[in-house]
Amino acid sequence: MNVVAPETQVEPVKRRERGGRNARREQRSHGPEAHGRPYIVRNIPTYDMLSEENLVRIEETADRILAEIGIEFRDDPVALDHWRRAGAKVEGVLVKFEPGLLRELLRTAPATFTQHARNPERSVEIGGKSVVFSPAYGSPFVMDLDKGRRYGTIEDFRNFVKLAQSSPWLHHSGGTICEPVDVPVNKRHLDMVYSHIRYSDRAFMGSVTSEARAEDSIDMARIVFGDEFADKNCVILGNVNVNSPLVWDATMTTALRAYARANQAAVVVPFILGGAMGPVTNAGAIAQSLAETMAGCALTQLERPGAPVIFGNFLSSMSLRSGSPTFGTPEPAIGSMVIGQLARRLNLPLRCSGNFTTSKLPDAHAMNEGTMSMLAAVHCGANFILHSAGFLDGLLSMSYEKFVMDADFCGALHTYLDGVKIDDNQLALDAFREVGPGNHFFGCAHTMANYETAFWDSAIADNEPYEKWEAAGSVDAAARANKRWKTMLAEYQAPPLDPGIDEALQEFMTRKKASMEDAWY
Amino acid sequence: MNVVAPETQVEPVKRRERGGRNARREQRSHGPEAHGRPYIVRNIPTYDMLSEENLVRIEETADRILAEIGIEFRDDPVALDHWRRAGAKVEGVLVKFEPGLLRELLRTAPATFTQHARNPERSVEIGGKSVVFSPAYGSPFVMDLDKGRRYGTIEDFRNFVKLAQSSPWLHHSGGTICEPVDVPVNKRHLDMVYSHIRYSDRAFMGSVTSEARAEDSIDMARIVFGDEFADKNCVILGNVNVNSPLVWDATMTTALRAYARANQAAVVVPFILGGAMGPVTNAGAIAQSLAETMAGCALTQLERPGAPVIFGNFLSSMSLRSGSPTFGTPEPAIGSMVIGQLARRLNLPLRCSGNFTTSKLPDAHAMNEGTMSMLAAVHCGANFILHSAGFLDGLLSMSYEKFVMDADFCGALHTYLDGVKIDDNQLALDAFREVGPGNHFFGCAHTMANYETAFWDSAIADNEPYEKWEAAGSVDAAARANKRWKTMLAEYQAPPLDPGIDEALQEFMTRKKASMEDAWY
Repeated sequence: MNVVAPETQVEPVKRRERGGRNARREQRSHGPEAHGRPYIVRNIPTYDMLSEENLVRIEETADRILAEIGIEFRDDPVALDHWRRAGAKVEGVLVKFEPGLLRELLRTAPATFTQHARNPERSVEIGGKSVVFSPAYGSPFVMDLDKGRRYGTIEDFRNFVKLAQSSPWLHHSGGTICEPVDVPVNKRHLDMVYSHIRYSDRAFMGSVTSEARAEDSIDMARIVFGDEFADKNCVILGNVNVNSPLVWDATMTTALRAYARANQAAVVVPFILGGAMGPVTNAGAIAQSLAETMAGCALTQLERPGAPVIFGNFLSSMSLRSGSPTFGTPEPAIGSMVIGQLARRLNLPLRCSGNFTTSKLPDAHAMNEGTMSMLAAVHCGANFILHSAGFLDGLLSMSYEKFVMDADFCGALHTYLDGVKIDDNQLALDAFREVGPGNHFFGCAHTMANYETAFWDSAIADNEPYEKWEAAGSVDAAARANKRWKTMLAEYQAPPLDPGIDEALQEFMTRKKASMEDAWY
Repeated sequence: MNVVAPETQVEPVKRRERGGRNARREQRSHGPEAHGRPYIVRNIPTYDMLSEENLVRIEETADRILAEIGIEFRDDPVALDHWRRAGAKVEGVLVKFEPGLLRELLRTAPATFTQHARNPERSVEIGGKSVVFSPAYGSPFVMDLDKGRRYGTIEDFRNFVKLAQSSPWLHHSGGTICEPVDVPVNKRHLDMVYSHIRYSDRAFMGSVTSEARAEDSIDMARIVFGDEFADKNCVILGNVNVNSPLVWDATMTTALRAYARANQAAVVVPFILGGAMGPVTNAGAIAQSLAETMAGCALTQLERPGAPVIFGNFLSSMSLRSGSPTFGTPEPAIGSMVIGQLARRLNLPLRCSGNFTTSKLPDAHAMNEGTMSMLAAVHCGANFILHSAGFLDGLLSMSYEKFVMDADFCGALHTYLDGVKIDDNQLALDAFREVGPGNHFFGCAHTMANYETAFWDSAIADNEPYEKWEAAGSVDAAARANKRWKTMLAEYQAPPLDPGIDEALQEFMTRKKASMEDAWY
């Protein structure tokens, strides 16, 4: 049977003052983790599908959508004021943009930025050649093979934070990993942000479901990192969705502006299901997505020029037999590659695709769609890949088993994104001289010198001979994953947290919770 | 539940004289199939990983392997004579090649050729931008969810030929889809080739396990296509393996020469498991593969200049925990992309990768590895993709369920390889004008005009809402695939075969079988 890959060992960090910059610098010298990396720096090119000419046609279509049809910004007078001052044409809530205006506004957005983690070893670069894997986000349900599907709770939420923290192949703690439906709607953001901070030492995301909740999330990050540091550096992300087609509502724009105002990064994401929230043709959905995302990203720059922002995208298709949304299908995979090219032409960090599927189980269907979709994410050049692990049933369920399968595949992608190294040792001419025709390479000097770092070795795959596999119970991948997440949770060790910070966070939460009645919708 | 996609409808072909060329031309006008295509013409670029400089370093390493270490050609004096005459340095069975010699010999090999099918509508182009999907090849076992794993029989073989014929998403009938172990080893090639001809009207492969069996296979193709036509056109393929590292044995070279002599295409394939039959480093394994394949391909040109030949490749890795071979892992996926670049620099058609996995079941593990591996095949520019469907357990098992899952994924790849179309209709500006901000696209004119061709719709995926899926029995993908292959077999209809040809084939087989005792090894 497979040996469980050693969990990430994190050096206990020194106790330090809240937000102390020198303390963080010191910790940085504690050395790299035994396994995994804080993020990936890709060593393979992006997969560029479209010619310059066709990219320009999509950009021109987006420009015409923006200029001729426009985007509504509903119930947010501040946003409309921003647009007026920037020179856009505001007609009621409808805003129209002359070609070039949004591109000009986007010039102040950084091409790459650091999102700091409370463990500085785990801070992530977002943009350029970096790739950051983050868990799935937003499921109301969770499921596992033992108990089936049920609504998520704060205990499930904590479990997934712990599983992500325990995986050497994820880089980010994510945000709303599942909805903790046992906590009041108006208070759960506090428990979610606290769980990320308490049970993980990686970077994380805050709430976007109202301006106040966004601000609470940012305030909690300020407690961890210190006000001054947090004003100058990105310490929290907020994922905001467009109400496609061509509408931004106040919930989203006020949250988006709260993050930008605090110099924190909004991830701007239209979710376009072709044929429903966008046209049924891929090129049109891509053009719409470009228009909607440019507008959202530009609004962050009007709120605070220079604030980090991520160009996000979520394209999907539809089953023409059932009318249901489909995920992990070929059209959005291709769409992702084009979106990647477009984002790079804007010089913005990209969030795109993830491990998508409509399957209700961690089965062959799930991993076929998930693998296609996740490879599109890494091929298209996405820098921040939300939904890297756990996504099931069109994002309705967060799966314990799929989470560890996906995290394992994220490990394989570390190797994949390293590409092929070309040097004398790798080219191995000496090995051929040593071995010669007709002999094997098992014990040769070159193999002995290189085998330890040679190949990706999955902790979920069973590569044993059939007879050995059969003797061990003919277990399938889902059952192996079931065993693995339980082992991971049993062996989980919380990263140390400064007691002063912990106390301040708890005090903040208690005060906030006491200030309002429970609300359940 | 999913509606089963209509099976391919093949027009009954006119009775015709054996191998009549005019008859074939006539049939070509019968119109395209209702579903599927004879092969794919890719509309997306290949995924080129390596720079010119690094490709040259690999080529130089291959050249040094060929010049300094050499390749053994064992027990085939004719092959050695060929090499002597071509100017290679022959020392016993060891042959060394000056840099440039093999490249010069390869100039006579066609960059692209047609393999003719007995139904001319189904002939395939091999090379250039064409992509041909062919079933897995060579498993001793078959398995399904009902009966588990067992040795393959001629009935299983026929079943898989029928399933391939019934799938609109495969293009080729393949070769040794599984070993029919109930037929004597020295006679089973006759039954296999006959089954391809009788139960499919697609192009197929013959035997390579001895020169005589290769010739029998070719003779059977001659019966179908006529001697003259078969001498001028490719009507059968033979897949020959190198005995890596750096050895070609007489079984393979005599079979390879038999195909070339008959102007039929050999597929030249080193199977290199890094750390065993090649170095443990990817770059070295790629260089070795290039050297071995160039030598095999060049030998076909010495046997008959201008004979079609396919540059083949099969890289794999190894589990460092168990010592077992691994398939569908990141290193060979990356290796495939590099091999694709190298094959195009030689201007040869490429066979590379396929739907590989070590999983023993059609589960999440199988489709994760298979999807990664199959995407590498289409990204690297492979023209002929053997092992497109059914591969399980490191090629030890041919799986009924995985066969139909993989064939379904081949359907998704038809859409994927079409890429994204850019024209006014696809860009959909009119749709935005019609719908405007905040409304849906469900019933708009643009959706109505385009929805029928809009999205890939899998026959294996279940995209229904959870409740509907649960009410239908909470069935997983493997169980759906189990149902589907049974339906496909039940609905299978044999394509018409000229009774004169059928009779001649049977007569040939009877005569051949009578000419030798059964041999079981």
